[in-house]
Amino acid sequence: MSDSAAQQNGNYRLWMQRALNLALRGKGYVSPNPMVGCVIVSKDGNIIGEGYHERYGKAHAEVNAVQSVENRELLKNATVVVTLEPCSHTGKTPPCADMLAELPIARVVIAMKDPHPSVNGKGIKKLKAADIEVITGVLQKEAEKLNETWLHALELGRPFVTLKIAQTADGYIAAPNGDSKWISCEESRKLVHRWRSEDDAVMVGRNTALHDNPSLTVRLVEGRQPKRVVIDGPFELPRHLNLLSDQYEEKTIVITHNREKWEKESDPMLKMLQSNYFRGEVIHAEKSGGHVRLKDALRKLHDNGIHSLLVEGGRDLSSALVRAGLVDRLRLFISPKLLGGGTKSISGLNVQRMEDIVPFRDFKWEQSGSDMLLTANL
Amino acid sequence: MSDSAAQQNGNYRLWMQRALNLALRGKGYVSPNPMVGCVIVSKDGNIIGEGYHERYGKAHAEVNAVQSVENRELLKNATVVVTLEPCSHTGKTPPCADMLAELPIARVVIAMKDPHPSVNGKGIKKLKAADIEVITGVLQKEAEKLNETWLHALELGRPFVTLKIAQTADGYIAAPNGDSKWISCEESRKLVHRWRSEDDAVMVGRNTALHDNPSLTVRLVEGRQPKRVVIDGPFELPRHLNLLSDQYEEKTIVITHNREKWEKESDPMLKMLQSNYFRGEVIHAEKSGGHVRLKDALRKLHDNGIHSLLVEGGRDLSSALVRAGLVDRLRLFISPKLLGGGTKSISGLNVQRMEDIVPFRDFKWEQSGSDMLLTANL
Repeated sequence: MSDSAAQQNGNYRLWMQRALNLALRGKGYVSPNPMVGCVIVSKDGNIIGEGYHERYGKAHAEVNAVQSVENRELLKNATVVVTLEPCSHTGKTPPCADMLAELPIARVVIAMKDPHPSVNGKGIKKLKAADIEVITGVLQKEAEKLNETWLHALELGRPFVTLKIAQTADGYIAAPNGDSKWISCEESRKLVHRWRSEDDAVMVGRNTALHDNPSLTVRLVEGRQPKRVVIDGPFELPRHLNLLSDQYEEKTIVITHNREKWEKESDPMLKMLQSNYFRGEVIHAEKSGGHVRLKDALRKLHDNGIHSLLVEGGRDLSSALVRAGLVDRLRLFISPKLLGGGTKSISGLNVQRMEDIVPFRDFKWEQSGSDMLLTANL
Repeated sequence: MSDSAAQQNGNYRLWMQRALNLALRGKGYVSPNPMVGCVIVSKDGNIIGEGYHERYGKAHAEVNAVQSVENRELLKNATVVVTLEPCSHTGKTPPCADMLAELPIARVVIAMKDPHPSVNGKGIKKLKAADIEVITGVLQKEAEKLNETWLHALELGRPFVTLKIAQTADGYIAAPNGDSKWISCEESRKLVHRWRSEDDAVMVGRNTALHDNPSLTVRLVEGRQPKRVVIDGPFELPRHLNLLSDQYEEKTIVITHNREKWEKESDPMLKMLQSNYFRGEVIHAEKSGGHVRLKDALRKLHDNGIHSLLVEGGRDLSSALVRAGLVDRLRLFISPKLLGGGTKSISGLNVQRMEDIVPFRDFKWEQSGSDMLLTANL
C-alpha cells in the first residue's frame, strides 16, 4: 500500500467510526431495521454532511446525510461513508442506492454488505453500474457488532434473546412466600428499564404475569415502551392484569396454543362482539408437551417484526429457554443477600455431571450498585 | 495541639504503621496468640530496632525488637512503639512489660490495650510505675482490624468462623451425580489454600468427608498446614479416609457426640490396645437433635487453642452454621457456569419473606480468575 493509499485508508476508518457513532443514536427506535449512520466527505476531505436512521419508517441514514449538505456543489466527487450497504428495494422509503447513483459523487465506502435477501449486494451493483467506486469492509467487525441482534435475527429467523434474572447470592429469585420485591438494587432495576427501552419486546410467562402482575413498562429511565409478550398457553389469564388492561394494552402480545380462542380474537367482527375485548395482539403457536412450543413462539414473534427480546420470566420460562438453547445472552444479577429457600433461578437443565456443563462462549462480571452482574453469551 | 506535638503525633502514626506491617509477617504462625509488631526509635528520631512475634511459643515482638538494637546506648530516652499492650504475665515467655520497665527508655506508644483477662491494663500500669510515659490509641482501629479474629475469639469464646462456598452462577455446589471437581477456577482454589494456611483449622462435615474424601492440605501455595476438623457425630467414618489416615493424621480433630467412643479414644491405654489406632485428637461435644451441637463444638475448639476456623462444609454444615448465627464471614465463590440442578449451596434458613432477610454487615465483590468472590461479614 502506498503512503497516500494508507493515509486514505486511515481516513476511511476515521469517517466510518463517526458514521458508526451516528448510527448508535437510533438504538431502540429503528428495529426491525438495523441501525445505520452516514457521513459525506467533500473531495478535499471535509465532512459536509451527516445523518442516521432515526426511527423505523422514517428516512434512511443516506437520505438524512445528503439532505444535511448545505452547499450541494460540494457533492461533486465527494465520498459517501455508510455503515451498511445502501438498500436497493422500495420498502417504507425509496431505494437509497438509486438516490446515491444519481449524485455526482466519486465513491461510496461501506462497512458491511446488507445480508437481507432483498439487498445482499444489489445495492453495491447499482452503485458500480453508475460508475461510482465502491469500497467495502471498512470497520466491518465493528459494524457487525453494532447490529449484532439484527444480524442474528436475520440468520436464525427468531429474535435475539436476552434472559434477565435477578437472584440472591445463593441463587433464589423469590422468597418462600413468593415475594421477589426487590431482590436487586435500584441501579440494577434501572439498567433493566434501560434494556427494556432498547429491545423490541419484553416477555414473561404465565406464572409471572399471574403472581407478580408486572407492567413491564419503562419507568425508571426515559425511553420508548417496547411491546410486551406474555405466554399464556390456554389463553386464560384474567383481564384485570396490568399487561392486559393498562394504558399499554395495545402493546401487549399474547401467545397461545389455544387455536379456538385465537381464531375468535383474530376475527375483528367476533372480537368487537365481546363487551370488553382485548386491544392487544394474539399470536398462535404450536403446542408441545402441554405448553406453547417456544421455538415456534419465537419464530412467530420474528415474523411480527420482533428481532430482539428481553425475557424477564420466572424459573420455568427461564429454564425452558436455556434448556432449548434459545437464550443468546444471559444477564444475571446477583444480590448480596441470602434467602436459603424459595424459588430457584434455574432448574431442570438435565446436566448430570460437571463435564456436561455447557461453557459460556464468553462472559464478563460488572458491579451494578450493590449487585454483581454476570453477562454471558451462550 | 502545638505544631511540634502534631508533628510528634504524625511520627507515632508513621512508626506504628511500620510496626503493624511487621506484625503481619507473623500471620498464620502465631495463633492462638495475636500478631504483634514493635519498632524502637532513638531520641533523635531514628529507627534503631524492629521485631515481631514470629511464631507461637517463641519470643514476643518487644523482645525481638530490643535484641535487634545494635548500639544499646541509643536505648536511652528512646521510644518503643508496639501494636499491642506489652504482656504482664509469665506465659510461654517472661512478661514484656517487666523487661521494658528495666530499660532506660522514655516512652512506650501502644496501638491498643490487650483485652486478655491476664493483661487488660496491667502491662501499662507496670510501665507507668517505672516512670515511663505511655501513649495509647495510636492507629488503634488498624491494630484491632489486624487481630480481628483473635479479638473476636476472645470476646465470644469461639473461633472466628469463615465459611467458604464455591458454587455455580445458579447456586449449586455439586452436580446431580455429586461431583464438585471443580466448580471454581484454579486461582480461586489457590486462594482457598492460602486461607487454609492462615487459619488455625479447616473444618468439614461428615458427608463431605465421606463423599469427597478431601485431604484439606495446603498444596497449591506454600504455607503451614492447619489442623483439620471433621464433625462426625456417631464417630463412624471409615479409617481409610484421607483425613484419618494420611501424613497429617495427627493434625486431625474429630468432633463426636458419642461419649462412649470418645472415652475409649481419650484413654491412652485403651487406645493403644487397638491395632490401628487413630493418631489425631477426639473432642466430645453435646448432642442436639441427633447432631453435634455446633455451638458447643466451636467452644471446645476454642478451648483447644483454635481461634480461627475455615469451614469448607457441604450444604448441611454450611446451612446449619448460618442458621445458628455462627458464621462471621462468608467467602462465596461464584463461577460463570450453569448446572440447573444438583446440591444447593445453602438451604433451610427459615426465611419466609423478603423483609426477613438478615442483611450483611458489609460486603465486597472481587474477581478471582474467572470467578466472582463475594466476601461478606455476617
